[in-house]
Amino acid sequence: MPGVTLIEYDDASPEVRAVYDDIKTTRGIPDVNNFWKALAHDPKTLARTWSSLKEVMAPGTLDPLTKEMLYLAVSLSNACEYCVHSHRAAARKAGMSDEMLKELMAVVGMASETNNLVRSYQVPVDDMFSGPVF
Amino acid sequence: MPGVTLIEYDDASPEVRAVYDDIKTTRGIPDVNNFWKALAHDPKTLARTWSSLKEVMAPGTLDPLTKEMLYLAVSLSNACEYCVHSHRAAARKAGMSDEMLKELMAVVGMASETNNLVRSYQVPVDDMFSGPVF
Amino acid sequence: MPGVTLIEYDDASPEVRAVYDDIKTTRGIPDVNNFWKALAHDPKTLARTWSSLKEVMAPGTLDPLTKEMLYLAVSLSNACEYCVHSHRAAARKAGMSDEMLKELMAVVGMASETNNLVRSYQVPVDDMFSGPVF
Amino acid sequence: MPGVTLIEYDDASPEVRAVYDDIKTTRGIPDVNNFWKALAHDPKTLARTWSSLKEVMAPGTLDPLTKEMLYLAVSLSNACEYCVHSHRAAARKAGMSDEMLKELMAVVGMASETNNLVRSYQVPVDDMFSGPVF
Amino acid sequence: MPGVTLIEYDDASPEVRAVYDDIKTTRGIPDVNNFWKALAHDPKTLARTWSSLKEVMAPGTLDPLTKEMLYLAVSLSNACEYCVHSHRAAARKAGMSDEMLKELMAVVGMASETNNLVRSYQVPVDDMFSGPVF
Amino acid sequence: MPGVTLIEYDDASPEVRAVYDDIKTTRGIPDVNNFWKALAHDPKTLARTWSSLKEVMAPGTLDPLTKEMLYLAVSLSNACEYCVHSHRAAARKAGMSDEMLKELMAVVGMASETNNLVRSYQVPVDDMFSGPVF
Repeated sequence: MPGVTLIEYDDASPEVRAVYDDIKTTRGIPDVNNFWKALAHDPKTLARTWSSLKEVMAPGTLDPLTKEMLYLAVSLSNACEYCVHSHRAAARKAGMSDEMLKELMAVVGMASETNNLVRSYQVPVDDMFSGPVF
Repeated sequence: MPGVTLIEYDDASPEVRAVYDDIKTTRGIPDVNNFWKALAHDPKTLARTWSSLKEVMAPGTLDPLTKEMLYLAVSLSNACEYCVHSHRAAARKAGMSDEMLKELMAVVGMASETNNLVRSYQVPVDDMFSGPVF
Repeated sequence: MPGVTLIEYDDASPEVRAVYDDIKTTRGIPDVNNFWKALAHDPKTLARTWSSLKEVMAPGTLDPLTKEMLYLAVSLSNACEYCVHSHRAAARKAGMSDEMLKELMAVVGMASETNNLVRSYQVPVDDMFSGPVF
Repeated sequence: MPGVTLIEYDDASPEVRAVYDDIKTTRGIPDVNNFWKALAHDPKTLARTWSSLKEVMAPGTLDPLTKEMLYLAVSLSNACEYCVHSHRAAARKAGMSDEMLKELMAVVGMASETNNLVRSYQVPVDDMFSGPVF
Repeated sequence: MPGVTLIEYDDASPEVRAVYDDIKTTRGIPDVNNFWKALAHDPKTLARTWSSLKEVMAPGTLDPLTKEMLYLAVSLSNACEYCVHSHRAAARKAGMSDEMLKELMAVVGMASETNNLVRSYQVPVDDMFSGPVF
Repeated sequence: MPGVTLIEYDDASPEVRAVYDDIKTTRGIPDVNNFWKALAHDPKTLARTWSSLKEVMAPGTLDPLTKEMLYLAVSLSNACEYCVHSHRAAARKAGMSDEMLKELMAVVGMASETNNLVRSYQVPVDDMFSGPVF
């Protein structure tokens, strides 16, 4: 299955190249990964998605490794194969060891089981948990 | 909707009490939360689930706060309301600030969007990402 | 939240009443449950859904209890609260005991965990499993 | 995509071999399937998952065939390809005929449709369904 | 992975051929697509599914293009690869341009993100939104 | 369950008020709905989400009604109750009649069923569908 054609830097419009350049500079990498080369078919979505991702994944009170591991956990849970590949690579680059990955995968698996048990048993929320989020 | 009846300590069998006691001791809390009082209808599942959770959530190369945040991220993604309440509380107890929670929720939301974009565009995996997990 | 208004037999069109009558006769019950009273807002969808459900849930090589338990397992997995309530009731009527329900819920929870582990580890399909479905 | 490397019996640690041996004895099979050879990268998760699965899938008030069909139904609903392959094989070994599989798949499909209709119409739970689970 | 064997017209029973013929006539195509050739293993499910699909996808107050785009959006959201392929083709045949597809995919992605944010923040329903569906 | 506290205009920071003002002007409404009053706890996420949504939902080659119906279909499929309420209201404001809503819900339900059948039968992609997305 060929999927989508990829738009390489040399074939990209100036608008797309500007986004590619910002990704490469921000991440210190020689080329962007396929996700961006696919989104480039829709330059507005490319620009918006990169701008959002850059803001969301920037270091904050959570460090980049924690953010990447959260991203990976959600991608595993959502069964997005490409996302798992790319964010596992990103998390490893940010310092995730094999042991950390194994523990992360065990947590994701366990959460799926207890999420299901909670729903099956229709567990009512404890009074002590019932305050507002913020 | 009444959901499930809850089995309190005083009404529990010795087998169930032993699990409740271990949860209370391990977590340093005066009473177990409703999840366990619901699972107590099936003592084998109660004992197995607690034993598994205790092992998975024990401090390892990932610290308890990171594990609780991963658990929360998956529960948000799975839309399990009770799980979100209980693991948000657990993550806060382990040190998650309001700012950290906001960043976590932004990552979960962003991951869901890009997971969908990746699938919509059928992005092929980059060669550099294609090595084995382990 | 009021949800949807329910169309009672006395207020229903002849077309809708004919479906209600067939449901009541087939199941030997005095009134249809709310699902049908909601679908009655769209008589074509009501008739088509009942006709399909009647065919799918009729006794075949699988007995009615097994079919209801499969329906319940999928509804638990899909987190459809109403469906869980109605199919748990139907399964109980078909002979599911409390013990059987507990075992069913344990299987559903366990499957969710191993489904996630399989995806996380990207397990390749064994040669012995790789034949065609039919 | 290579996925994960598989740890064969001859290359496994004594801890892992003990689990493999128990799986082979319990199931009366000459070798374990790939799921276990993948989990073996994390011996604790391997041991815990096998121990849990063995308990959950042991004959109880539900027979092994029913349990395997429930496992398969959830795996189909969760779109876990490997799990579908392995549990379809297990269910067949436990006695599931082609006709039973077809009926199972029809139930899973139908449940997905009505689960969605119920949520779309926001059907309120009938009073007769609203009692506690246990 | 071979998946399922496909039942071609020449090898089909009269019962299956009748459905194939109706699909071909209704759609004005020379052969049915693989979905139907797979379902043909279960002639009752084949006939019921075609009959339902024909009714649901017939022009109504929504035109065929809108219906196909809704079908595609749900299939993208459900991560059903085959369905995405077949309904993207159907939507294109019904008039969906590349630009329309890009906008559709952007909406699907955005909806997934805000669906998650809504759940994470546990947003209460506004009074003005709380009336019944019908 | 109180959910999240809502930040009203009078209590909002200038940064948040600027977003509220833009939403009100763009949509021609006297007050923003609860989603925005909840996101206001994280002003950066509020601003980013509004900016993205405004871009994605602006009239393009797809008209606003079609976009709102796609948004609603995904929200139904994702079982996000608040989102269903708010986007059903938005779609109605954009011109969706009761009949159109019923047809939309029938399509969403049908898609869920066939998505599951496709996966259950492991249908291989037809050659004619296998070209690249773009």
